[in-house]
Amino acid sequence: MGETIKDFKRTHLCGEISKKNESQEIIIMGWVQKRRDHGGVIFADIRDRSGIIQVVFNPDIGEESFSKADQLRSEYVVAVKGEVELRPEGNINPDIYTGEIEIKCQELRILDKAKTPPIQVEDDIDAGEDIRLKYRYLDLRRPKMTQIVGLRHKITKATRDYLDQNGFWEIETPILTKSTPEGARDYLVPSRVNPGQFFALPQSPQIFKQLLMVSGMERYFQIARCFRDEDLRANRQPEFTQIDMEMSFVNREDVFEITNGLMKKIFAEVDIDVPDKIKKMSYQEAMERFGTDKPDLRFGMELKDLSPIVENSNFNIFSGTVKSGGQVKGINYKGGADSSRSIIDNFEEHVKLFKAKGLAWIALRDGELKSPIAKFLSKEELDNILTKMNAEEGDLLLIVADKASIVANALSNLRLKIAKDFDLIPSEVYKFVWIIDFPLFEYDEEEDCFQSKHHPFAAPVDEDIDKLEKDPASVRADAYDLVLNGEELGGGSIRINNRPLQQKVFSVLSMSEKEQQEKFGFLLEAFDYGTPPHGGIAFGMDRLMMITARTDSIRDVIAFPKTQRATSLLTNAPSKVSKKQLKELGLSLRS
Amino acid sequence: MGETIKDFKRTHLCGEISKKNESQEIIIMGWVQKRRDHGGVIFADIRDRSGIIQVVFNPDIGEESFSKADQLRSEYVVAVKGEVELRPEGNINPDIYTGEIEIKCQELRILDKAKTPPIQVEDDIDAGEDIRLKYRYLDLRRPKMTQIVGLRHKITKATRDYLDQNGFWEIETPILTKSTPEGARDYLVPSRVNPGQFFALPQSPQIFKQLLMVSGMERYFQIARCFRDEDLRANRQPEFTQIDMEMSFVNREDVFEITNGLMKKIFAEVDIDVPDKIKKMSYQEAMERFGTDKPDLRFGMELKDLSPIVENSNFNIFSGTVKSGGQVKGINYKGGADSSRSIIDNFEEHVKLFKAKGLAWIALRDGELKSPIAKFLSKEELDNILTKMNAEEGDLLLIVADKASIVANALSNLRLKIAKDFDLIPSEVYKFVWIIDFPLFEYDEEEDCFQSKHHPFAAPVDEDIDKLEKDPASVRADAYDLVLNGEELGGGSIRINNRPLQQKVFSVLSMSEKEQQEKFGFLLEAFDYGTPPHGGIAFGMDRLMMITARTDSIRDVIAFPKTQRATSLLTNAPSKVSKKQLKELGLSLRS
Repeated sequence: MGETIKDFKRTHLCGEISKKNESQEIIIMGWVQKRRDHGGVIFADIRDRSGIIQVVFNPDIGEESFSKADQLRSEYVVAVKGEVELRPEGNINPDIYTGEIEIKCQELRILDKAKTPPIQVEDDIDAGEDIRLKYRYLDLRRPKMTQIVGLRHKITKATRDYLDQNGFWEIETPILTKSTPEGARDYLVPSRVNPGQFFALPQSPQIFKQLLMVSGMERYFQIARCFRDEDLRANRQPEFTQIDMEMSFVNREDVFEITNGLMKKIFAEVDIDVPDKIKKMSYQEAMERFGTDKPDLRFGMELKDLSPIVENSNFNIFSGTVKSGGQVKGINYKGGADSSRSIIDNFEEHVKLFKAKGLAWIALRDGELKSPIAKFLSKEELDNILTKMNAEEGDLLLIVADKASIVANALSNLRLKIAKDFDLIPSEVYKFVWIIDFPLFEYDEEEDCFQSKHHPFAAPVDEDIDKLEKDPASVRADAYDLVLNGEELGGGSIRINNRPLQQKVFSVLSMSEKEQQEKFGFLLEAFDYGTPPHGGIAFGMDRLMMITARTDSIRDVIAFPKTQRATSLLTNAPSKVSKKQLKELGLSLRS
Repeated sequence: MGETIKDFKRTHLCGEISKKNESQEIIIMGWVQKRRDHGGVIFADIRDRSGIIQVVFNPDIGEESFSKADQLRSEYVVAVKGEVELRPEGNINPDIYTGEIEIKCQELRILDKAKTPPIQVEDDIDAGEDIRLKYRYLDLRRPKMTQIVGLRHKITKATRDYLDQNGFWEIETPILTKSTPEGARDYLVPSRVNPGQFFALPQSPQIFKQLLMVSGMERYFQIARCFRDEDLRANRQPEFTQIDMEMSFVNREDVFEITNGLMKKIFAEVDIDVPDKIKKMSYQEAMERFGTDKPDLRFGMELKDLSPIVENSNFNIFSGTVKSGGQVKGINYKGGADSSRSIIDNFEEHVKLFKAKGLAWIALRDGELKSPIAKFLSKEELDNILTKMNAEEGDLLLIVADKASIVANALSNLRLKIAKDFDLIPSEVYKFVWIIDFPLFEYDEEEDCFQSKHHPFAAPVDEDIDKLEKDPASVRADAYDLVLNGEELGGGSIRINNRPLQQKVFSVLSMSEKEQQEKFGFLLEAFDYGTPPHGGIAFGMDRLMMITARTDSIRDVIAFPKTQRATSLLTNAPSKVSKKQLKELGLSLRS
């Protein structure tokens, strides 16, 4: 059993003490970072949430305290009463805030001892992730991790302050609810009171936030837990958090104005500047110029359409592709002309991952064109290609001819690969862009039907409503994504607010009347009783945190994350349950 | 399809317009509360989240707008452009903020029509709760309900602001987790990736918040969703919300200081005064004086112990009870001497609900003692009883003789019943009290074992640690409840922060080493690596809201509540799922 803190009241946090506290008598409490002897004197660095400070134990503090100081080991929990003194000149540590002072201990209490921890409590450790997750409570003690937890608090606080100031009410929506329309797999919760029936955990509060608009709440937000039982990819978690918002009596520009301001507040917490008015780019333009609806605008290397130049070429691979409805597009890797054959082969393998049949290239090196395809193209075609692609001596042009969707996918990914591999992306540059005018539907070739690009509640833009039945593929949604440096921060839309239009959209999605009624009958009925125009957006909190904390792993920004197998190495959840529990739920395990 | 809000930007909220806006041109948007014709002019009350305003449509606004005004019905959604005018003298409505003005409409747009709503959007309605829950989006439009939703936002905001200012970080803990130690039934979530295994939804973040203290986070809070699959009583919900807090390096008084401040902030939102220093009362004193650990201090009628007076009485029912270890206690219903025989019978039935064998009474009426038991008691005994109970002319003394626990339960409930039935409780009086020094364990007679009074992580008070093995029943916990007007607002404790003591407590609770390891092994292991002294508390958000919103129903303070059958009448959750879903989870339904 450790000593008590009775009659011992903490006066300061370790990391906040400086020269200005000289000669003060203080009491600190925290963990021993390290302890060392030096010429009969003991030094210990004491750490708390705020930082680290050096404590000096002289033999003159008395035998009891000194002998306790001698027992100190890493991660012991201590309380120290002492006096703030300036360090001797040679001992000043300019790297830490408290580096000019130290605490001369008068009384030491050991509040708890510690075994040698299985991972070191230091920022740069090479412990594997599994052991870090098993001993998460030690991993979180590392200053970098502690700071991320604190940053997450600051960012959610800034979010709540801003939205409150702008008239939003935070409203809790149910966790035990019904399947929501996102289309991913639901987590289910068996009901004991109603055997054979199940709740679903929400994939988002989408329907509830719309019902809140029907309820006249006007401006809703929630920092909401959401759940998806999907096969996990690197940066996915079974439960995740989003900043979820909805507003009534607004159009797209109103949503942009509010959320632009929110982004300014959030990124200000980490000194990242957000423009007063984030630029907009249509989905079509993004696809044309970058081959993706999540363009990374920190660097160029845009896609150039060579189709008009080569559509009548004798080079059949190009002209044939264009004539059969495909595209020929290229990117210019500036200064890449020196790339070795194996690098270019590697580029080609990369585009093949995205189903491209091949990669043509032209290198402008030593005043010449090196290219396996140049000989098939006319002088005029070649000149036009070089002009179109702003080619100069030293450049490497990389060209894909294929179906439009494959060209976009292959070249956008090749563009990112080249930028990353060759360090073409400037650091600490943040390029925000709104992508707008998304198609309302996507055609699913496998299932031979239309699916919602966002979700079935996004409204079509007014001008396209007439085309819903005749030409659904051409209907644009009043939907928008906020993209930062090639990552989607969030997305939303103006919603449908009347029953006939909502049912028309459901019909395009091949949903029968019966199915509409079963899944969304209560929402359709709500629309009958006076529904305001409304729209909203949701931001992925975990991704926002990864960007602001400048880390690559989602598991760094969640206090207690799960593995990619959706398990907790800390608590060993999930786990088996008793037969009695299963029986109460009316369930049995399949053998 | 309704009209568009294009080029129409809302300038004001309805409830915020007053004389100071006279002659301004404004645009409002909201719902039609009611419409009426009067001498060829149409009047409509328009409602939004902020309040109600009257709009006047004169025929001179043009045929189109006037004919639209004529179509208006309750709950239509409209946008109105118009000018703020003073109402004619006779038409002023002093009951509403906007009662001195009205809007002279220049342009009307009908944004959405509405069918006649199944419940009226007015505060005083007699609709049954089922229909209110089915049409929750209409129920929430009623100003009283809208205001409660807004109040809940304000109170959670005030909570977060206060805790942030006091160095607390809000940290999210998992929803998909493992059984927690509260002992109620868990909601289970089958794992698809690990078939046959289950997550549990947390009954509280108790273990995670303690692990966060082990992690050095020092001050944690969360407005946390919690889940219990219990048979529902009137004011219980399957999911509920608590303000959950934990602090390191603190003792009980530190927790009291912080939470006292929090209560001041929360209750200030509804103009309720909280003392700077809430009084403390020991569990023992509360039981002696009020027969309950949740004493309502708004009125007297305290329990008086008559056992020493009657222990040698010839009245065997009293003396026998005392001699066999029981108690004789009574309450004085001041001015109740006139109570009819049927009222007193009713009191007796009430104490029998709580297992008392009977109720003795003495009425002081017309200068005499009326009582069926007076004749069995000596003059001295009677005098002593009257003195002890401060009896005066007009009083009714009500006495129970039984086992101590039954006496406490019966008389505390009778005391409440009398106070409620005869309006003895002053309104708008708020009496806060800390109940401290709870027993650490409760003896469970049915199971013949000890159980935790709070939960197994509460620390014993230092002085009682030695008695853990020999006399567990006498060990006090360093635990506390905050009680307001007889309701428990929250409870917590200083926690055990070392493994040997935690294991000793588990042993008293008859938990084998194996069971300790399976359930809480990870927490015990965490205690090995340097755990600070820590403690915390959790407040029931829903109950706080019921008190501050001055409502009796928990369903009034939750936006989308469930019924007592744990179902949602709005969404029809829970519901059946497909065979495919069950199969993926490795489950089948028992037939």
